[in-house]
Amino acid sequence: MTEPTATGPDRRPGGRTARVRAQVLDAVRAELAEGGYEALTLERVAARAGVHRATVYRRWRDVGGLLVDVIAAAGEMDWRPPDTGSLRGDLTALNQEIQESLVVRPSFATALLAASFHSEQAARAQTALWADRYVQCEVLVERARERGELPGLRTDARSLLVAATAPVYHQLVLLRADPDPDLPERAAAAAVLAAAAGAFTAGRGDGG
Amino acid sequence: MTEPTATGPDRRPGGRTARVRAQVLDAVRAELAEGGYEALTLERVAARAGVHRATVYRRWRDVGGLLVDVIAAAGEMDWRPPDTGSLRGDLTALNQEIQESLVVRPSFATALLAASFHSEQAARAQTALWADRYVQCEVLVERARERGELPGLRTDARSLLVAATAPVYHQLVLLRADPDPDLPERAAAAAVLAAAAGAFTAGRGDGG
Repeated sequence: MTEPTATGPDRRPGGRTARVRAQVLDAVRAELAEGGYEALTLERVAARAGVHRATVYRRWRDVGGLLVDVIAAAGEMDWRPPDTGSLRGDLTALNQEIQESLVVRPSFATALLAASFHSEQAARAQTALWADRYVQCEVLVERARERGELPGLRTDARSLLVAATAPVYHQLVLLRADPDPDLPERAAAAAVLAAAAGAFTAGRGDGG
Repeated sequence: MTEPTATGPDRRPGGRTARVRAQVLDAVRAELAEGGYEALTLERVAARAGVHRATVYRRWRDVGGLLVDVIAAAGEMDWRPPDTGSLRGDLTALNQEIQESLVVRPSFATALLAASFHSEQAARAQTALWADRYVQCEVLVERARERGELPGLRTDARSLLVAATAPVYHQLVLLRADPDPDLPERAAAAAVLAAAAGAFTAGRGDGG
């Protein structure tokens, strides 16, 4: 969220600027999900949002600017990592969320991913969002440690989180496999077993 | 490889047709690696290959046709899965090969991946090639079983292979992380520990 400022009524959250942004970003999501990156133009977004073209050009400049802002908006969402009471449950819930976002049609997540292969700007924004989400999820590993699920291990949280979630992305995005309803849990369970066996222990002397 | 036929000297392996194909596909790889999918045109490929434009149009029709054939040619390569004497060693070697292909610059593998987000034809060919490679790699799991590395387990080979390799793709392709020289081995080791703990055991009564 941009910081609220006192420089003008337009800038306050809930003001006209925020409303226009919400309308435009909704239009970007809808256009992306329907037609993908290839069909995304400022003209179509402006028309769909019911906003003057000049406003969209002035504020977002180009399709790259729209993509960056729609990804930024996803990062501003009040997203919280799951908290089910076990590491395996948490990672399964996380994987289910990921799988759902990639499988639903039209999928905004998939369209965004494809866009990140066309636009360097979108790629950077997408990468930053993911980095942020993985950091947010480190608490899952912290909680597991506190519950005694990873006894005596200095588990590297990020490695464990990547191992748990990567198969879902790989199967659906790169291998383009049919969604497998068991995959979220299977991938989570495998990562937990590997972690319990010491697979993601932070290496040789550096801090956990 | 297309089957050798006796219908004309042009068609025999090593004949003019095969030479033209080799020149054109080399040009596609070089163009993709240098300029990516966006810069790929039949004209540029023909010029680089030193082949008549009309020949390229007649045989490959469009950029999608060129992509499909360059992926098909990769599938025709005499690729063999590693055989190091241990499952962990084999999966590490496999991951090193994957990481290298994605990290080398210019990377043909990365360009092909990006292309598969533009062209449905390229996506299908890429998916088929990967499916094939995973089937070829099932022998790694078979050999591990014979060596007694997975005692008493009916391990689902594909699940194990996807779990072992997915983190490398995820980190480098989607998360766009800097290459981590330890990742190929770490991901392989984690998958082996999970497999030994029964993570990829083929489920409830269906055959291994």
